Amino acid sequence: MPRAKNIVWIMCDQLRHDYLGCSGHPKLKTPNIDAMAERGVRFRNAYVQSPICGPSRMSFYTGRYMRSHGSHWNGWPLRVGEPTLGDHLKKIGVRNVLVGKTHMAPDLEGMKLLGIPPDSIIGVHVAECGFEPYERDDGLHPTGRPRPRYDAYLREHGYEAQNPWEHWANSGADAAGSLQNGWLLAHSDKAARIPEQHSETPYMTRRAMDFISESETDERPWCLHLSYIKPHWPYIAPEPYASMYGAGDVQPAVRSQAERQSAHPVFAAYMSMRYSRNMARDEARAKVIPAYMGLITQIDDQMGVLMEFLGERGLLDTTMIVFTSDHGDYLGDHWMGEKDLFHDASAKIPLIVIDPSPEADAARGTVCDALVEAIDLAPTFVDYFGGEPPGHILEGRSLMPLIRGKTPSGWRKVAFSEYDYAMQDVRLMLDQPIERCRLFMVFDGRWKLIHASGFRPMLYDLASDPQELVDRGEDPSCAAEIARLQAALFDWALHPNDHITTSRAKIAAYADNQLQVKGGVLIGIWDEAELAAIREKIDQRKTR
Amino acid sequence: MPRAKNIVWIMCDQLRHDYLGCSGHPKLKTPNIDAMAERGVRFRNAYVQSPICGPSRMSFYTGRYMRSHGSHWNGWPLRVGEPTLGDHLKKIGVRNVLVGKTHMAPDLEGMKLLGIPPDSIIGVHVAECGFEPYERDDGLHPTGRPRPRYDAYLREHGYEAQNPWEHWANSGADAAGSLQNGWLLAHSDKAARIPEQHSETPYMTRRAMDFISESETDERPWCLHLSYIKPHWPYIAPEPYASMYGAGDVQPAVRSQAERQSAHPVFAAYMSMRYSRNMARDEARAKVIPAYMGLITQIDDQMGVLMEFLGERGLLDTTMIVFTSDHGDYLGDHWMGEKDLFHDASAKIPLIVIDPSPEADAARGTVCDALVEAIDLAPTFVDYFGGEPPGHILEGRSLMPLIRGKTPSGWRKVAFSEYDYAMQDVRLMLDQPIERCRLFMVFDGRWKLIHASGFRPMLYDLASDPQELVDRGEDPSCAAEIARLQAALFDWALHPNDHITTSRAKIAAYADNQLQVKGGVLIGIWDEAELAAIREKIDQRKTR
Repeated sequence: MPRAKNIVWIMCDQLRHDYLGCSGHPKLKTPNIDAMAERGVRFRNAYVQSPICGPSRMSFYTGRYMRSHGSHWNGWPLRVGEPTLGDHLKKIGVRNVLVGKTHMAPDLEGMKLLGIPPDSIIGVHVAECGFEPYERDDGLHPTGRPRPRYDAYLREHGYEAQNPWEHWANSGADAAGSLQNGWLLAHSDKAARIPEQHSETPYMTRRAMDFISESETDERPWCLHLSYIKPHWPYIAPEPYASMYGAGDVQPAVRSQAERQSAHPVFAAYMSMRYSRNMARDEARAKVIPAYMGLITQIDDQMGVLMEFLGERGLLDTTMIVFTSDHGDYLGDHWMGEKDLFHDASAKIPLIVIDPSPEADAARGTVCDALVEAIDLAPTFVDYFGGEPPGHILEGRSLMPLIRGKTPSGWRKVAFSEYDYAMQDVRLMLDQPIERCRLFMVFDGRWKLIHASGFRPMLYDLASDPQELVDRGEDPSCAAEIARLQAALFDWALHPNDHITTSRAKIAAYADNQLQVKGGVLIGIWDEAELAAIREKIDQRKTR
Repeated sequence: MPRAKNIVWIMCDQLRHDYLGCSGHPKLKTPNIDAMAERGVRFRNAYVQSPICGPSRMSFYTGRYMRSHGSHWNGWPLRVGEPTLGDHLKKIGVRNVLVGKTHMAPDLEGMKLLGIPPDSIIGVHVAECGFEPYERDDGLHPTGRPRPRYDAYLREHGYEAQNPWEHWANSGADAAGSLQNGWLLAHSDKAARIPEQHSETPYMTRRAMDFISESETDERPWCLHLSYIKPHWPYIAPEPYASMYGAGDVQPAVRSQAERQSAHPVFAAYMSMRYSRNMARDEARAKVIPAYMGLITQIDDQMGVLMEFLGERGLLDTTMIVFTSDHGDYLGDHWMGEKDLFHDASAKIPLIVIDPSPEADAARGTVCDALVEAIDLAPTFVDYFGGEPPGHILEGRSLMPLIRGKTPSGWRKVAFSEYDYAMQDVRLMLDQPIERCRLFMVFDGRWKLIHASGFRPMLYDLASDPQELVDRGEDPSCAAEIARLQAALFDWALHPNDHITTSRAKIAAYADNQLQVKGGVLIGIWDEAELAAIREKIDQRKTR
């Protein structure tokens, strides 16, 4: 059997952990993803490091917490010099290739200060977050950036418009044929105005297959990040997915009146956001959720296409497959839309890993309960390719033992996630200083504490309250749990991987039983006799 | 009167806060520095952000805590892209010029990854920590770096040797004339083997004056960092300073037997270090401290030379003068040598600021009690030159109001300092993991808490115990104080200035009462009517 070599790392955007057949959704059809779970390990306690696209992805792509990489919001540039997965893979000769979304914003000011031309090879590597952009497409086509290739693709197929992505692929039509803007939730029940094969998900799948085909003549191993924009909004699917699910397939909203009556101020502010007020309405859920489910089944079908393609080329035997998402979607649960907070609907993600190696055979089809963080993927990939994950930079841990059914010693007892709401109306509602709009989740597998700077904590007991409906943050009987998790957060906050220029191996080799006389620098030695004794010890050690 | 324009920022190395006449030393003669204090403001509660050269200086030069700049030890490179005072001054057209020591180690690996040639203009700026190196000299002449110009200077004056700095300027001779290595404490009572005018302190003063003379034809304002290596070891002074002070001038050691009997494990480990055991001996103190005092009076004399030079050129009216140190020296107090821990002998520094502006007249000759951190200087300098200190990057606060006798609102209630002992034998003695060798000081002006990862805290009450002889870390009556300072540390740890690419002004301009429809990205809007209402509100706001 050929040696394990490549990675296909599939990421969906805004896909909830529980919107898959294999994770228990009673109505949603995802047979291909379920089959992937059967061939690999499914992690059912995987959390993102920030429940919003940009910061979450920067954590995936750097293997570091948000407080370390510093990109707290969509569009906040990742500082130049922040080490990425691409940097670590480059050192061991592995290409890190992108097809789809990263949400990376380059630090153009930092690059200018350092004299790095953005269009140089190094400039592109830096500006693209360590990826070789085979095809970059953030889906949402923000203004001020070049139009992605997908726009031209649509035009080539006759879909002409100023913004064909919005006009055709993400808008619907009413009965009379007039355009219905797919951004608006009221139109999520329409079908997108293009045939399925021209929509974004199959297009990106084909682009991934294009790369894989082209790479067959290249001996270098690669990590291909196939990063879909869907099922992220605009919530609108092409046929047949548009009409695949109906109001009867929508699960009841997970929420209680009590949540609104005594809400924590931060939670209350989020419930009052426009998107939350809209998504909390049954009418919106009935329109949006079937479209969301259709988009997921479309991804599932594309997983079928991709796995068949890999199988035909014999690549399944040599390719690690990873399937995940950058965060979830409240979909009206807890009276919320979007993501932002740390309920499982938002902060927990699906994660399936298929390791082709024989060592992983025993673990195939199993479900792993270990607390996993998104930042674990970067060290996992370096490890898989045979590199040594740089532990002074990466803040996650390699999942390789877990993927192969082993229980590593000293696995983490708590998972962390962060959020910075400085850029949101919530800051104005709560009248918080810009630098103190910080939320921190500490989750130990049962108790989930949310530390909110300037406010009391929130607390959920997922053992007695798996739906996270009861905030115990003010319950005196929980004081010990709160203190314990706060202590864990304190310890975490004091020990970031904040030095990235000096490896632990270098440090380990340094401290040397007070024998250093390095470079002729003699510290605090009394006289010639003491110095001679030190030099003798050093010589003895050398000859040992 | 000409407008305030330049800064001369003088830094000594390892100069204790209380080894000046103006700060109360009963024997030490520092008339010139005392006169500077009379012309400016003396800060008597100024603390470094790490009581060791490299990390302390990186905090001075970046205006950021150690946990933010990430350079935890001497020689640990400052990561490329870490913003420096030099970057901020460059933006407002001010030269940031170095004469002397910085202890900067360039991030050569990071520079290589980003394609920055170390010998380019940008490369030198990055490699020299944002300084224009008029003359770089770290004093200790480590191996593997080019020999400083001072070596050639000594040779030109006939002091020939493989390492003339060590052989002549930092060694003595016994009665028979044979060489006595100045590194060794036993020889601190000897005189250095060169005339005073050729020793390092006057040499560096002359180099500073050379720069100032040359800059007179240049219109650009400048910040000149005149950074002396002394009174740092090798503790050996040229005549007349070598014999200026004697054993009778040595103050009694500040220490108690109780300190050794129930020492905190970290404190105990440091007391057992070779340099501590040696410096705790009265014989060593009697030899070292007079040399240390002589080196300080030599600096004081050079301050006289420098001030006269500036005065003759009329520059005293336009130049801010700052006098400080990078940390102190235990000198046997608390049974310790060197620095490392947070007693005032080590973590507190002298700080005198003379602002030439008339607005500062009322404050001249005053002593300021405000809690000041070394990181306050960078924003002070940007402020002095008329710039806006970037509050999302700099973690200190401008001292300009205090320098002009004003009491700024909301001044800090606690000062922080950090230490990482991963590179020291102490790590091996305490058997701590490399990533957890962290100490944190929190000081509120009275209570000083030292948080030691993995150990109980230390606590000193400087009101009842100004000499810091009684560790109250296990005293149950201090539980409330400990909890209060730990909470302050917790809050500090959770709120670093960890995003450096996005200014607060940019953030403030963004949050906008849920009206964002930026770049055509419409989030969670229900229908056309709601969208039209939002657009109408935006238009109304624009016309207001």
